[in-house]
Amino acid sequence: MTSPSSFDAPAQTEIPPAGAPLTGRPVVRLKPKAEARAIRHGFPWVYADELVTDRRTQGLAPGALAVLEDGDRRPLGLVTVNTRSKIIARMLDRDPEAVIDAAWFATRLSRALALRERLFDAPFYRLIHAEADGLPGIVIDRFGDTAVVQPNAAWAEAHLPALVAALVEITGVAHVVKNGTGRARGLEGLAEETTLLAGAVSAPIAVPMNGATYLADVMGGQKTGLFYDQRPNHAFAARLAKGARVLDLFSHVGGFALAALAGGAASALSVDASAAALALAGQGAEASGFAPRFATRQGDAFEVLEALGAEGARFDLVICDPPAFAPAKPALEAGLRAYERVARLAAPLVAPGGYLVLCSCSHAADLSAFRNACARGIGRGGRRGQIIYTGFAGPDHPILPQLAESGYLKSLVFHLDG
Amino acid sequence: MTSPSSFDAPAQTEIPPAGAPLTGRPVVRLKPKAEARAIRHGFPWVYADELVTDRRTQGLAPGALAVLEDGDRRPLGLVTVNTRSKIIARMLDRDPEAVIDAAWFATRLSRALALRERLFDAPFYRLIHAEADGLPGIVIDRFGDTAVVQPNAAWAEAHLPALVAALVEITGVAHVVKNGTGRARGLEGLAEETTLLAGAVSAPIAVPMNGATYLADVMGGQKTGLFYDQRPNHAFAARLAKGARVLDLFSHVGGFALAALAGGAASALSVDASAAALALAGQGAEASGFAPRFATRQGDAFEVLEALGAEGARFDLVICDPPAFAPAKPALEAGLRAYERVARLAAPLVAPGGYLVLCSCSHAADLSAFRNACARGIGRGGRRGQIIYTGFAGPDHPILPQLAESGYLKSLVFHLDG
Repeated sequence: MTSPSSFDAPAQTEIPPAGAPLTGRPVVRLKPKAEARAIRHGFPWVYADELVTDRRTQGLAPGALAVLEDGDRRPLGLVTVNTRSKIIARMLDRDPEAVIDAAWFATRLSRALALRERLFDAPFYRLIHAEADGLPGIVIDRFGDTAVVQPNAAWAEAHLPALVAALVEITGVAHVVKNGTGRARGLEGLAEETTLLAGAVSAPIAVPMNGATYLADVMGGQKTGLFYDQRPNHAFAARLAKGARVLDLFSHVGGFALAALAGGAASALSVDASAAALALAGQGAEASGFAPRFATRQGDAFEVLEALGAEGARFDLVICDPPAFAPAKPALEAGLRAYERVARLAAPLVAPGGYLVLCSCSHAADLSAFRNACARGIGRGGRRGQIIYTGFAGPDHPILPQLAESGYLKSLVFHLDG
Repeated sequence: MTSPSSFDAPAQTEIPPAGAPLTGRPVVRLKPKAEARAIRHGFPWVYADELVTDRRTQGLAPGALAVLEDGDRRPLGLVTVNTRSKIIARMLDRDPEAVIDAAWFATRLSRALALRERLFDAPFYRLIHAEADGLPGIVIDRFGDTAVVQPNAAWAEAHLPALVAALVEITGVAHVVKNGTGRARGLEGLAEETTLLAGAVSAPIAVPMNGATYLADVMGGQKTGLFYDQRPNHAFAARLAKGARVLDLFSHVGGFALAALAGGAASALSVDASAAALALAGQGAEASGFAPRFATRQGDAFEVLEALGAEGARFDLVICDPPAFAPAKPALEAGLRAYERVARLAAPLVAPGGYLVLCSCSHAADLSAFRNACARGIGRGGRRGQIIYTGFAGPDHPILPQLAESGYLKSLVFHLDG
């Protein structure tokens, strides 16, 4: 390598040595023994212990673009580097000379849009689901003519103008919100901030889904304002709801409750710690024409579960969709105990022959561990049941086969004994 | 134990010792160190190495009813015993004195029916899915006013009249077919036979599902004539089908193909080795009004895949739903290679940006192993893709949480690169 401070002018016109990038981009290299096969087969990440981290690599700012080479100096593609992260590099393009501009974003957005337009009748969906849609660290949710962008990686923040230009061009959205509240941003050296990048957003957006109307607060709500990932699981629960008394715990803006009411539930009670979320749920019920059948109860879900148990309350369909109790490995044991506790407290509230929906959005708790925790909890709650449904995040949340183990959302439906 | 041949009359009036059944039923007992906890928590099976197999137990005919006791002679429930099977006993009822009669069957059938009537608009579904519906070894599929019973266990064969009486009473079906082609029957000492137990069946039955009409040959077809388990996966594939050229391999009576045509496919080609199955698929297409868009090709799926590859054929949606390549552990490696081969041959037939549906009904290949085999095959076929859907058997195929690992049906949908 020539020194970046060299004044040796003729060196700049030399033909680059074999393997050196024509782009003048920094090069990062796998350790000699690191396995490049997985990356060649589509694995999108390089872990820190696989990369040569010399002073030059250490000096790269979070989000810097670089050409990734294997141990034999053969280029593998264009990556974005973050030396502070265990995932030190993420693949952006197999072409090491790819130019990251609006046209490059437009190609990926078009492909993602084609899938969603095939799947959904109306433009309400997750448009970009990070790695699996070819844009590591970027999440975009679409609410009609409004898009909410989460640039959770420094490279995305740096290229935000090109991304937004492409987004407006490809989808025709009029309003673009930047939601900078993701946990990953701190690691990337990015500030928390939610701002408007295009257009204007003045009120919660009405979102039609599963026969109900939801209200999404895209400027101030949790995540991007609404959780699209549960859509197929909401739909399945709605099939069980006809005439049912429904209890929806950790309800947020009424995800399961409003779908169940659309499915013909006799009544639905939404419980959440957030008064703001419950207010949106109420507005959604109003907008859907479900208000007479809908009620809310603000409070800690565990405390409400215990209180309802003490009251002897019974429901035909009980749903528990808590936040991630086991977001990462160290929290796994405690998280599984929390899932078991939810199941133990909820099971006795289910009427004979009724249904219990238990969800986990914990990466660290895999399907088998989560299912076992649920079954244990149901047993300790004095009940037995059969599993009639196992669901994951909807198809607007694709996964790479190479990262499929980390599918985070699980939704189990138990039919309990009579 | 008193000898069964004893003439010692007064012994018959003695109060039975603690733990002895009042029913006069044989007793089988867990070994002292065998763990009864799982059974108390709902696990429905006893493995051969967990049971005391004295001469008396060895002498029980396949399907005999017995009271299961733990190592301390406390009763655990009523089981059916088969000393020829690795699963030597299956739980029928937690009440060791339960009487297995039409009323007993009616209770279980009613509970199973309530679930299906909640889930489905029309009476076409799997009504009883063995253990998970409380009837070990018994499968019942319902086709309107016809039911097909698979009594794949000797106890079920012995109690068939009571089962059929209850079935007719609870569901109101007019026709009952006994399908005795299950692999398990040999192990239970049962003959292969398909007979009519009630009513009359003269022609294939029209089955409405996912907007198409299928023809089920309940007297002579594979299994019970139609595979209900794929219904939600058919429905998902249909959402991808609008305007698509569809290839359905291992098509049987047109499961995926007719659903795709109902979803708006431009054309569908069904491939199967069975001319009889393809004829039914054709009749289904006719009955659905899809005949002009439907074609069939009889032959070995692997050979057809290779021929289509050589012809340079391309489809927007390709489905491979083969028979179980890895029905049991010893066949796992070969089975996974076969799944990989299917994926490798099918991937090149998918047009840019198209979809590939890959299914497995192998117990031995779990989701992770199957998914990896598919991803390897797609890669070797020169393609990459994202997974947009992971589906299992429909909700009329419930599973016990304790047996959930053995969920046999997996359906993966890949969106391939452009």
